[in-house]
Amino acid sequence: MEWTNKIEAAAQRIAGHVRVTPVLQTAGFGLDRPLEFKLEQTQHTGSFKARGAFNTLLSTPVPTAGIVAASGGNHGAAVGYAAAQLGHPATIFVPEIAGPSKLALIERTGADLRVVKGAYAEALAEARAFEEQTGAGQVHAYDAIPTVEGQGTVMREWEAQGLQADTVLIAVGGGGLVAGAMAWLQGRRKIVAVEPERCAALYQARKTGAPLDVDVSGVAANALGARRIGQICFDLAQAQDLTCVTVTDDAILHAQTALWQELRQLVEPAGAAALAALMSGAYTPEPGERVAILVCGGNIAPDPLA
Amino acid sequence: MEWTNKIEAAAQRIAGHVRVTPVLQTAGFGLDRPLEFKLEQTQHTGSFKARGAFNTLLSTPVPTAGIVAASGGNHGAAVGYAAAQLGHPATIFVPEIAGPSKLALIERTGADLRVVKGAYAEALAEARAFEEQTGAGQVHAYDAIPTVEGQGTVMREWEAQGLQADTVLIAVGGGGLVAGAMAWLQGRRKIVAVEPERCAALYQARKTGAPLDVDVSGVAANALGARRIGQICFDLAQAQDLTCVTVTDDAILHAQTALWQELRQLVEPAGAAALAALMSGAYTPEPGERVAILVCGGNIAPDPLA
Repeated sequence: MEWTNKIEAAAQRIAGHVRVTPVLQTAGFGLDRPLEFKLEQTQHTGSFKARGAFNTLLSTPVPTAGIVAASGGNHGAAVGYAAAQLGHPATIFVPEIAGPSKLALIERTGADLRVVKGAYAEALAEARAFEEQTGAGQVHAYDAIPTVEGQGTVMREWEAQGLQADTVLIAVGGGGLVAGAMAWLQGRRKIVAVEPERCAALYQARKTGAPLDVDVSGVAANALGARRIGQICFDLAQAQDLTCVTVTDDAILHAQTALWQELRQLVEPAGAAALAALMSGAYTPEPGERVAILVCGGNIAPDPLA
Repeated sequence: MEWTNKIEAAAQRIAGHVRVTPVLQTAGFGLDRPLEFKLEQTQHTGSFKARGAFNTLLSTPVPTAGIVAASGGNHGAAVGYAAAQLGHPATIFVPEIAGPSKLALIERTGADLRVVKGAYAEALAEARAFEEQTGAGQVHAYDAIPTVEGQGTVMREWEAQGLQADTVLIAVGGGGLVAGAMAWLQGRRKIVAVEPERCAALYQARKTGAPLDVDVSGVAANALGARRIGQICFDLAQAQDLTCVTVTDDAILHAQTALWQELRQLVEPAGAAALAALMSGAYTPEPGERVAILVCGGNIAPDPLA
């Protein structure tokens, strides 16, 4: 798989449709070294998901029945937004746990929103049934090549912006973002995959040696609560012997508060999980190791201005 | 006055103490052209004020009695933070209208916080009395050369980051930030000074031909509610024939919501005032005119995570 060329092509394809998101470097957070941050939650619809959504819609024929997606919320908003921008109808299946902020966000894109009982896995089952009934094109949230190519553009962009870090910490749900990072970096920098203890599909799969169904719950479940890690992510993680750590919900909430108090970045819990791994000591860098944090999502509930 | 050299020197002086704040470019906001943003609310203590505070403390001898400042909140937090970082005691006089978020922010810096009845002008009177009694060094929020030099480093930094805009919109309270911008740019780019209708000290002074006391109220009064525009700012504005516009509180709140919904930047009303001028049509750029927005403060009340 020539990931480098594929991600380069994705970057060209989605240029102008997605934002080049800002980066900064700062000390703080009670840590012993400066951190680099990429504020990817400033992307359209508040997460990196717009990259994979645009790449999919721009690289595959869209049926007249339009697009369908299942999502904990962020992917659905991104697909709804991309579809609207490109003139396609979109139907988005979302579990109840997405919460009112993310439901409102998806509705603002103009998509046909269908709320499903249960968690992400149930929404995915309904999206697949809809796909079979209508012929709509399915945009998978993480386990599809065009999705991973799109998410891989985050790390490509960050390197072009002068990323210096030896190590990049990335939160993992279904694994699309970290898969894109592994696919782009090809071992040039260390990646640390961070999952909540209560949504640890990758951590458990790596321990077991194969993807397996896990229980999902906790403060970041509506963004990181994939029941099973994507196969694309898992295969890359095995091949690269990816470092995987988990963090508690308390550590996530503590990092979320720190991002607001120190940097005036208000993010959802998932967006603070990577920083939580450093602040809690779940990952302890070596002396001199330069570290970067990818802030992946900002769709906090409740909406602070609602 | 050799502002260019002074601001260069200030930038060298405060480097490492303040953040290089992130920039980005994006379309949106219902406007007909892309905008450049500088997210200066990600500065230490949530506003540009840290620049002037550090520049003052690092360029003038600090008495053993320490530092005193009056502030609507943001300047006090910045002075408290800078004093703590540099090992000086600080006493900060703040009017009640600062609100609980800003009071908590100042307390977290470790400063001695004194809450005063009334608005900024009353806090300033008490700070001056304290200065006379104790010999503490006064850090003026806007009408002092070291303060203006420090704030001028924002625009210097933005140009070094590749600012392309023909025109930069900047919110004005007492005028320290816009004075710094005028002092640095020396007419190379157009500046539009934006004030709330109900805190329009510069607009009224320009209309009258001299600084005068104005009434201050409204949603941004705890950041932009200076009763009288600073003389340094006014003189620069007269010399450069600065463009001044005003915006309604409704326009500010609408822009504040747009910054959150479109860019996941949660800012205080003052931080949205510059964008409000564009979104409301208070300032209408010419065809082809490239426009930038300085986001100056993020200390919203109530604290969204409190």
